[in-house]
Amino acid sequence: MASTFVDLNADLGEGFGPWKMGDDAGLLRVVTTANIACGAHAGDPNIMRQTVAEAARNGVAIGAHPGFADLAGFGRRRMTLTAAEMENLIAYQVGALAGIAALEGVPMTHVKTHGALGNICAEDDALAMAVGRGIKAVDPALRYMVMPGQATERAAEKLGLTPISEIYADRTYADNFNLSDRRQPGAVRHDTAEIMSAVKAMLSEGALIAESGRRLPTAIDSICVHGDTPGALTIAKALRAALEEAGFRVCAQYLNG
Amino acid sequence: MASTFVDLNADLGEGFGPWKMGDDAGLLRVVTTANIACGAHAGDPNIMRQTVAEAARNGVAIGAHPGFADLAGFGRRRMTLTAAEMENLIAYQVGALAGIAALEGVPMTHVKTHGALGNICAEDDALAMAVGRGIKAVDPALRYMVMPGQATERAAEKLGLTPISEIYADRTYADNFNLSDRRQPGAVRHDTAEIMSAVKAMLSEGALIAESGRRLPTAIDSICVHGDTPGALTIAKALRAALEEAGFRVCAQYLNG
Amino acid sequence: MASTFVDLNADLGEGFGPWKMGDDAGLLRVVTTANIACGAHAGDPNIMRQTVAEAARNGVAIGAHPGFADLAGFGRRRMTLTAAEMENLIAYQVGALAGIAALEGVPMTHVKTHGALGNICAEDDALAMAVGRGIKAVDPALRYMVMPGQATERAAEKLGLTPISEIYADRTYADNFNLSDRRQPGAVRHDTAEIMSAVKAMLSEGALIAESGRRLPTAIDSICVHGDTPGALTIAKALRAALEEAGFRVCAQYLNG
Amino acid sequence: MASTFVDLNADLGEGFGPWKMGDDAGLLRVVTTANIACGAHAGDPNIMRQTVAEAARNGVAIGAHPGFADLAGFGRRRMTLTAAEMENLIAYQVGALAGIAALEGVPMTHVKTHGALGNICAEDDALAMAVGRGIKAVDPALRYMVMPGQATERAAEKLGLTPISEIYADRTYADNFNLSDRRQPGAVRHDTAEIMSAVKAMLSEGALIAESGRRLPTAIDSICVHGDTPGALTIAKALRAALEEAGFRVCAQYLNG
Repeated sequence: MASTFVDLNADLGEGFGPWKMGDDAGLLRVVTTANIACGAHAGDPNIMRQTVAEAARNGVAIGAHPGFADLAGFGRRRMTLTAAEMENLIAYQVGALAGIAALEGVPMTHVKTHGALGNICAEDDALAMAVGRGIKAVDPALRYMVMPGQATERAAEKLGLTPISEIYADRTYADNFNLSDRRQPGAVRHDTAEIMSAVKAMLSEGALIAESGRRLPTAIDSICVHGDTPGALTIAKALRAALEEAGFRVCAQYLNG
Repeated sequence: MASTFVDLNADLGEGFGPWKMGDDAGLLRVVTTANIACGAHAGDPNIMRQTVAEAARNGVAIGAHPGFADLAGFGRRRMTLTAAEMENLIAYQVGALAGIAALEGVPMTHVKTHGALGNICAEDDALAMAVGRGIKAVDPALRYMVMPGQATERAAEKLGLTPISEIYADRTYADNFNLSDRRQPGAVRHDTAEIMSAVKAMLSEGALIAESGRRLPTAIDSICVHGDTPGALTIAKALRAALEEAGFRVCAQYLNG
Repeated sequence: MASTFVDLNADLGEGFGPWKMGDDAGLLRVVTTANIACGAHAGDPNIMRQTVAEAARNGVAIGAHPGFADLAGFGRRRMTLTAAEMENLIAYQVGALAGIAALEGVPMTHVKTHGALGNICAEDDALAMAVGRGIKAVDPALRYMVMPGQATERAAEKLGLTPISEIYADRTYADNFNLSDRRQPGAVRHDTAEIMSAVKAMLSEGALIAESGRRLPTAIDSICVHGDTPGALTIAKALRAALEEAGFRVCAQYLNG
Repeated sequence: MASTFVDLNADLGEGFGPWKMGDDAGLLRVVTTANIACGAHAGDPNIMRQTVAEAARNGVAIGAHPGFADLAGFGRRRMTLTAAEMENLIAYQVGALAGIAALEGVPMTHVKTHGALGNICAEDDALAMAVGRGIKAVDPALRYMVMPGQATERAAEKLGLTPISEIYADRTYADNFNLSDRRQPGAVRHDTAEIMSAVKAMLSEGALIAESGRRLPTAIDSICVHGDTPGALTIAKALRAALEEAGFRVCAQYLNG
């Protein structure tokens, strides 16, 4: 059965040193969960602190958003790591954000992997487990944000970590739960009305709706919105308004749970 | 009154990626406390993990050894940071090591600042306080390794952090508790017998003994030995043997305290 | 005697990886000389190439803009380097831009130091000479952009490098040719009319005009405009228009010389 | 027909900041060509300068050894780059070493790609061409060190760059000119006598000798020896002595040609 609660998450704090990315202040007034870059693919201790503080002022839940240590490539290039290296990389970055969050007295709620690291872990059970072990070591109460039907979901279950099952507001799905290849025509939705309609359908049916029309039942806890594309903030606001109008309570239910 | 316990500490895990530094395995069989680099001036998640694990196998206490984010300069070049930036830098690195240590189920006991960052904090009360706040936020039970009579000692006291008061085995002191300028002749001791004799005198008198001969009373909890110079391991072993022969119990007394 | 030619220069290509800074495309339609970041404080091989190509399309002269290897601090934090280290750092970065410029078949005309590295070299004759030797080794025909009355000007003269003597459009000067401390009220001009008037006076008199009103005679080859502040592009455009109206030919005269 | 000249090359200058790698001083007394790391996977401006100077003192030819910008992974992890990005990366690093070499007044003779970047370029014609274009832009007289039968060899030919055809002293070959997979038993030779015998056979026959015994005719200009494994220097010395005894003149014939 579908939930009447839903969370909106976005990747934030993705500047570095003097450089900015996206409209964090704007998004923090719309989303309910912030995935904060941890200094490897983006972010630095100062930006992390500001983002944690700004999220807290807006009542937004915070989690770590670890990525590959590839600043120039923004963590979007695949790198081959062993499972042990992956575990270490995750524990390092999650621990680092925990340190920063402690300065603000704000608890972390979850971990979501970034970019190419996230893609690899969705596909590879050994690496998804390594991420999960890294999370669990730092704090077994941290939730593992996962994609339905992927290796990360299986890892969360095996490790006894509470999953946050997320869908992408602007992407279409294949029958095997995978996101459709974004280079295919139509794989990324740009039309706000279409995005609203797809999201509401998935939430109310408690299922991914594949391009084929097939229903893929799953829990849906959170919807990912993007912040770094033009119009992203407008779409996020419209989505939140539409969800509230449709009777959903938009919140990070796990913030106090 | 002088203690009958004393700790030997060394800076470890100072490789990076494919590069090694010092004889960590050798030193971990001699010292009782390891200050572990946290990825900014040296160290990476994999080296941190190995060092934590190896320390644990040897019953050696571990702490974070944060430094400036200047890999090429090994954290030995001064950089101007605001107090807020310092606080963030420390919390980030201490948190990161906490994450790695959690993977091995090993508790961190303390924090010791590295290189130019350490030098600046010994001199500057505002920055020493910023370091202390970074430590305290992550875990108020972490001890703050300080130099007698310096800003770090004052900061630990103000913040209610337990200090670990350390002396340098191979350095001489001025009357104001400062280390003598290392470019002065005689400011760095190389003779093992001289090092032994100076250390034993300071421990038994419970005081720094300045070059002038003046006694500067202080608690002495730990003796810093270096690992990256030729003969360092030999000196460390000789020092430990001499201390044990003189009736001191060499241990990280704070490991279980 | 004052020249009837004048050059406008700006620092460009100061993004990194996915991050942008300033309005390079806009500035490249106004200035006649681009100082291009070389990958140490900002810039990467791809951004360097794009900036070189875009400058060439606009007929803008290009030069290297080397800085400290401190990406997080954008090269604005002072670092202590020996003269030998400085020489190596400069030759590395100037050579790197030469490599990129060769891909576009575009000649480099000059070198201008960035941020804290530039400040240090304006003050310190040994470091200014080291920069000059780095430049000269790569290509003795490269011009050394210098500040009148500073160590860089003296170094260019000693080494036989052709100087490009630059003034800052929006800054005031002390009687000793130094820029006034930017923290002093009035040290940075924000009013466009005031900027125009100061620049035109300096050009027509062939002298810096100090805050005291004193004239400090100097060659003036180029005027530095900033690109990373709000309104910067507007000011730059207005300055160029005012100069042209006053009968100056705005060009990088050294481009073909 | 086989040459009576042969060159010995090694990868050098692979330290970073305070960290050392390999016995550069020792190898520079044995090899005739040095491939010098350019600051991306290893090396920094100071180490590059020292290596260039030390090579020059030993009459050893120098070339750039560009790699992926992945210090922590030592350039051994594959990264996906477009051909344009590859071209820029190469021109940047080759230009940077040209800048450093100019400080010592030493000409560069060639370029050899490093690690994973080299592996990718051996396989992929588009990327091997991109490397070649990067080299040619900086200086069309630079030689392109290539592996017989690989994409790099084809690229050198298409671009009119003089190749340096190299073989690996300690590796075996498959019938398609590829190095045998190093994880296969026997794919890496450790026995000095075996290494000597294989190298002499290949040189005198002017052919790679595959594991199958098949002869793969090719020019052989240079033999790669490794410096970072225990015993590497001993093997290199023995190889040089054996070659000289067998009547080969060991030199970088292209140094003056």
